Amino acid sequence: MDGLQLTGVLPPIPTPFDEVGNLDLDALTQNILELNATGLAGYVVMGSNGEAVHLSQQERAAVIETARRAADQGPARIVVAGVNEHSTWAAIDATEQAAELGADAALVVTPYFYKNAMSQAALSAHFLEVADASPLPLIIYNVPANTGVVIDSDTIASLSRHENIIGVKDSAGNMTAIAATIAAAIEGFAVLCGNAGIFYPALAMGAAGGVLAVACIAPSACVELFNAAKSGNNARACELQRKIAPVSQVITAGMGVPGLKAALGLAGYKGGYPRRPLLPLTETDKLKIRQVMIESGLFPALQSATVGAHD
Amino acid sequence: MDGLQLTGVLPPIPTPFDEVGNLDLDALTQNILELNATGLAGYVVMGSNGEAVHLSQQERAAVIETARRAADQGPARIVVAGVNEHSTWAAIDATEQAAELGADAALVVTPYFYKNAMSQAALSAHFLEVADASPLPLIIYNVPANTGVVIDSDTIASLSRHENIIGVKDSAGNMTAIAATIAAAIEGFAVLCGNAGIFYPALAMGAAGGVLAVACIAPSACVELFNAAKSGNNARACELQRKIAPVSQVITAGMGVPGLKAALGLAGYKGGYPRRPLLPLTETDKLKIRQVMIESGLFPALQSATVGAHD
Amino acid sequence: MDGLQLTGVLPPIPTPFDEVGNLDLDALTQNILELNATGLAGYVVMGSNGEAVHLSQQERAAVIETARRAADQGPARIVVAGVNEHSTWAAIDATEQAAELGADAALVVTPYFYKNAMSQAALSAHFLEVADASPLPLIIYNVPANTGVVIDSDTIASLSRHENIIGVKDSAGNMTAIAATIAAAIEGFAVLCGNAGIFYPALAMGAAGGVLAVACIAPSACVELFNAAKSGNNARACELQRKIAPVSQVITAGMGVPGLKAALGLAGYKGGYPRRPLLPLTETDKLKIRQVMIESGLFPALQSATVGAHD
Amino acid sequence: MDGLQLTGVLPPIPTPFDEVGNLDLDALTQNILELNATGLAGYVVMGSNGEAVHLSQQERAAVIETARRAADQGPARIVVAGVNEHSTWAAIDATEQAAELGADAALVVTPYFYKNAMSQAALSAHFLEVADASPLPLIIYNVPANTGVVIDSDTIASLSRHENIIGVKDSAGNMTAIAATIAAAIEGFAVLCGNAGIFYPALAMGAAGGVLAVACIAPSACVELFNAAKSGNNARACELQRKIAPVSQVITAGMGVPGLKAALGLAGYKGGYPRRPLLPLTETDKLKIRQVMIESGLFPALQSATVGAHD
Repeated sequence: MDGLQLTGVLPPIPTPFDEVGNLDLDALTQNILELNATGLAGYVVMGSNGEAVHLSQQERAAVIETARRAADQGPARIVVAGVNEHSTWAAIDATEQAAELGADAALVVTPYFYKNAMSQAALSAHFLEVADASPLPLIIYNVPANTGVVIDSDTIASLSRHENIIGVKDSAGNMTAIAATIAAAIEGFAVLCGNAGIFYPALAMGAAGGVLAVACIAPSACVELFNAAKSGNNARACELQRKIAPVSQVITAGMGVPGLKAALGLAGYKGGYPRRPLLPLTETDKLKIRQVMIESGLFPALQSATVGAHD
Repeated sequence: MDGLQLTGVLPPIPTPFDEVGNLDLDALTQNILELNATGLAGYVVMGSNGEAVHLSQQERAAVIETARRAADQGPARIVVAGVNEHSTWAAIDATEQAAELGADAALVVTPYFYKNAMSQAALSAHFLEVADASPLPLIIYNVPANTGVVIDSDTIASLSRHENIIGVKDSAGNMTAIAATIAAAIEGFAVLCGNAGIFYPALAMGAAGGVLAVACIAPSACVELFNAAKSGNNARACELQRKIAPVSQVITAGMGVPGLKAALGLAGYKGGYPRRPLLPLTETDKLKIRQVMIESGLFPALQSATVGAHD
Repeated sequence: MDGLQLTGVLPPIPTPFDEVGNLDLDALTQNILELNATGLAGYVVMGSNGEAVHLSQQERAAVIETARRAADQGPARIVVAGVNEHSTWAAIDATEQAAELGADAALVVTPYFYKNAMSQAALSAHFLEVADASPLPLIIYNVPANTGVVIDSDTIASLSRHENIIGVKDSAGNMTAIAATIAAAIEGFAVLCGNAGIFYPALAMGAAGGVLAVACIAPSACVELFNAAKSGNNARACELQRKIAPVSQVITAGMGVPGLKAALGLAGYKGGYPRRPLLPLTETDKLKIRQVMIESGLFPALQSATVGAHD
Repeated sequence: MDGLQLTGVLPPIPTPFDEVGNLDLDALTQNILELNATGLAGYVVMGSNGEAVHLSQQERAAVIETARRAADQGPARIVVAGVNEHSTWAAIDATEQAAELGADAALVVTPYFYKNAMSQAALSAHFLEVADASPLPLIIYNVPANTGVVIDSDTIASLSRHENIIGVKDSAGNMTAIAATIAAAIEGFAVLCGNAGIFYPALAMGAAGGVLAVACIAPSACVELFNAAKSGNNARACELQRKIAPVSQVITAGMGVPGLKAALGLAGYKGGYPRRPLLPLTETDKLKIRQVMIESGLFPALQSATVGAHD
């Protein structure tokens, strides 16, 4: 897919499991089919919210295949496959597998076990080696909350010169760094904001789009925010930003994957259970999520359901 | 000064010392007189860049008096006095002294020595007690890079209900938190961005203004950025943001007070020396600052000076 | 006091305040008189537990004078005065004041407001300058939990060559670093352990003694531990270490100055109130302290009192 | 293997690769055969220094089999297999594979990708589930420098009650926590120190032994230190501790796996290359290691080699 343009909103789709922990591909298909109509630019499977690290290699293949097939039934054509591997060779292998299964790009996480050894030079060498070998264009994945590793703006900007490295999903939440990356990277390199809490600010500074967990449950609001920001409708963009921020804050920053899965259920999608060692949410936490979702005004169905429940 | 409105750009003025470490009030006066014509909303003295912690009580009084007198000769009327005290009683004393000397507001830092004890409840109690007693309206000062303490958006929003707490200078650089504070605080509470690296993003989310070290050396650019953002000129605001960010990054984030003082000198103001234990900049670091300042395009005089030097 | 030898156990005495926050020098005197008979090597006033940062300069003078007078009535002759100042000049002034008031040594904290500027070079220059000017021998105070600054083993070892720098109170809790400092410093330089949780391990590696908050309430146990370790009675040293560690953990690591003050009261000393912004302990926390103190077996009076209370 | 007693010194053996990154099982065999005569209690394969995360499942199997076979030719019978998996099911699978291949125990790392979700409850549930299913006794592996996750003393102590959880390798370097774990765990639970920098202090507090990278290159010194500490020869234990600490500090803390591999080569073992993204050491760093090793006095062969080189 020469000249893949990453722009707009992509949700990092969670991987559904049933109660005993089996992969539920039907649920995944249904979620994507439902999302197909919402104006999203595509899908990220097996990002942090996709529990890549809890899947076997075969399961990862099945997830990519399933997402590819479901996405092809809608207008949002891009399927990005997460690659969460510690070694350079395994990351390359995973990009090859993802290419065979029909993914359009690979989202490759910074290696993170030997944190102290992950100098900017080591990170740079890793991404260059993977990019050279990968049949898919690469997106760098910077997610220090999970990895404890930060890839700098300067390193990303330098990697942007490689023709097979087309973007970065930056989930560090560091607005200064995102702006610096946009300014220093080459024209056309896609800086995707990975934190809903700073989506509009990142767009104001020129981000190409966002990979936002909250877009799994409120896709239309995220897409509208993106369009408002790009068309200079500042007031509307700011208003939508204030609506999605608390939802994002409680669910993903506060409760992580189990929170997002519970929220999917509340929003009418297939959420399902996380895999161990992730524990399912407590009822108290579920109520907190419901409360924040209702207060946001973004989930009218949920609101009427609640009213109904009081009748 | 009932109904003090904090909006626009305020530089946190460094306190000039001569080579042997004596306070140089003439230099302070000259700097402010020169800045008076640049559209700034006022001045902050003895913020982090003002080395309050390196001054005796008498020296602090002299700085406030001097700034008051110099500011009164220009259109920018607001003088904010930094209060950097560990105990609640000393913070109250300092607000009283600042009021007598003519300051308009007090910028009160979160206490920070007993970090583990600085719960949100303890911080809240401290600010309420100071606000009750202070003859000056208070601005909360959140600066974790120096204090290791963070005051949360919820706590700030709750304190915004106190009529004598009129704003916050938030220098944590956390865009998500700044947006959350703006959304949760009462109408009219001034959220001032304390990091030039996110000034335009913060304004896009509704910040009232900024207290920016870079405004000491590039006041007009900061003021123009503020005006562009407020009038919806996104392209110009973004462009100016990209110009000031690297200057801010190198000088204040990278080199701190000695960096800012060196930059003042390069920009034609009185910089002078920091007090020990702060060490003066190395020549290498000074050259780095000069380089970044020239590259920003914001200092044409510096650029021609350099050209001249090569003739 | 040429050739001051720091060895053994010194408690960092809290500064007593009454309910309205006034300094209670009588309580301080009584505490020291009672401690005089317990085998301690001396006293540290205005360390972190002494709330130096909450005292005026006059109050600090009164505390030193009072401690000097009370200590002189017992066999433990050393009075160490804490110096908690941000600037080099103020630290020097404070050592001069402490010398006039009869202190034997000054415990000088690493400067900590401009954390990012506190390179090992800056810390080194600061301590050398203070040591050159100070009429009192210096003890370096490394307490990152409060300061966010760490002075390295190599820097301390290098400073140990200055004849007026006689030791370090290391409260970082980093056993590896303490051992490295002991190994690298010159013969006779006193490395004092500042965390009761690693007191015996530090002594096993050659530490000269300890400045331990728990020694304010359980002085005899700490002194016995010191003697057991120095005489090779490993089993007894280990046993005592296990008794004092949980008390230390709950009180000082968990609850800080208010916790130590409450524990003083429970142990029969004058505790009193902390000054704001420190909040007094909740009743729940007080009960937790009482519980741990009873379980340690180090406070028989408390145990019988409890039994009595249930009669 | 009912009643497996973990005591003494176990080196965490690196996995040798050749220049192009292939697994070199012969080198592994040779290293273990050479170590067999040094008094070690056994071997840990695929700990952090074993690059488990850079091996395929088949390679991991080959490493266990090879180590088992080589260990069986010496008196040190224990082979511990590292299990570095993110999901509970995969950790269980790995313990089953390790059991089939002849390992005696499994060293199971705390899950670490979803750091914020790794509450003590989640960690506890994970280890209990693995312990219930595992055919091998478990050793908990706490290594925050790599994982960013800390399992608390209280949680470990509680897990020590499970009959299939026989110990912990604690590499957090937190002496206070190690002592607290020893005190709170049940009798016979093996607390193994994972940092050579605090080995003697940990033994003084009752640790059962150590899993020390430095034991790969200086096994005899580590074993002698262990014996000295256990027999109350404090002076000798302290002396040896001071010799191994700087070597450990430079190699493993400073340079990680590539450092340890270079040191193996210098000490006469098969070191080989790390796998990407780990970069091989620079020549400067190799010289630094050589220097520290010579200064320690623990490598006489290296010292004479150097003398020879100058002839």
